[in-house]
Amino acid sequence: MQKQTNYDQAVKTKYPEQIVIAIAKDANGKANPVTLGWTMIASGSPPMMAIAVAEKHYSIETIRHSKCFTISFPSSEMADAALFFGSKSGKDTDKFAEFDCKNEPAKIIDSLLLTDAAANFECTLESQTVAGDHIIFVGKVVASHINTEQKKRLYSLAPGHKLGSAS
Amino acid sequence: MQKQTNYDQAVKTKYPEQIVIAIAKDANGKANPVTLGWTMIASGSPPMMAIAVAEKHYSIETIRHSKCFTISFPSSEMADAALFFGSKSGKDTDKFAEFDCKNEPAKIIDSLLLTDAAANFECTLESQTVAGDHIIFVGKVVASHINTEQKKRLYSLAPGHKLGSAS
Repeated sequence: MQKQTNYDQAVKTKYPEQIVIAIAKDANGKANPVTLGWTMIASGSPPMMAIAVAEKHYSIETIRHSKCFTISFPSSEMADAALFFGSKSGKDTDKFAEFDCKNEPAKIIDSLLLTDAAANFECTLESQTVAGDHIIFVGKVVASHINTEQKKRLYSLAPGHKLGSAS
Repeated sequence: MQKQTNYDQAVKTKYPEQIVIAIAKDANGKANPVTLGWTMIASGSPPMMAIAVAEKHYSIETIRHSKCFTISFPSSEMADAALFFGSKSGKDTDKFAEFDCKNEPAKIIDSLLLTDAAANFECTLESQTVAGDHIIFVGKVVASHINTEQKKRLYSLAPGHKLGSAS
């Protein structure tokens, strides 16, 4: 039976929610990773993925500058990195300098891949749309990578940043 | 270690992937439910949600006609309904007439809620953006409902329409 309630209460039924780390370089060439739960696949052919980024986030500037970004599916062991990348602003922090998270250059775009992630997708910026207090960026996937060890991806399991694997 | 591969292989790391059933009425007043895996929250304040719908789907026409839609989080027991609503076209089928899935009128918009879902969100159409072979519809949540029995939502667990709960 359905009961009308407030949005904050109803949306708690969303868990587990998948997590991605999006990475784009700023005008100084600094790669800025940000952890996001609001993401989806957006097209099958050509493959595209979407992310919603808070309009005040430094990531907005980096994606608009470089017009490309990596979407990384962090592995279930990468909760600490995801929490760090999601809690600091890249405006005054070099997140990769402050948190040791193995990375390597992307192959097609000017960005990074996360070496221990379950998968990485290199995207070129296709569109950006304002949605309330967020911007939806759609990226066309131009290269894909998987972990040779078949890692499981990371999820947000409950309110309060409880992260882990889901099955 | 990362290894470059094709997109179809890399995207198999996406599971579990959440499922929603989106419902909108067509010009004849027929409510058309469609099962979608490509969905995300898009804004916090005001709350908005996004869905990506294949451009050839009848749902495109229904959402454009009614300018509103329900996003329902089917409960983990609703796999059969989700499979049915995802495999038929509403163009020549009245899905609610052919598959018995309890529903009730929405409170604010002219659509339906799924009675046994984990939650239902009534949305007014905010924007639509082409993304490859899909259209991204963003809806502003104007009413929210939860199941009084605290149901878990339904996920796609593996390729080949394996649906169930995730934790």
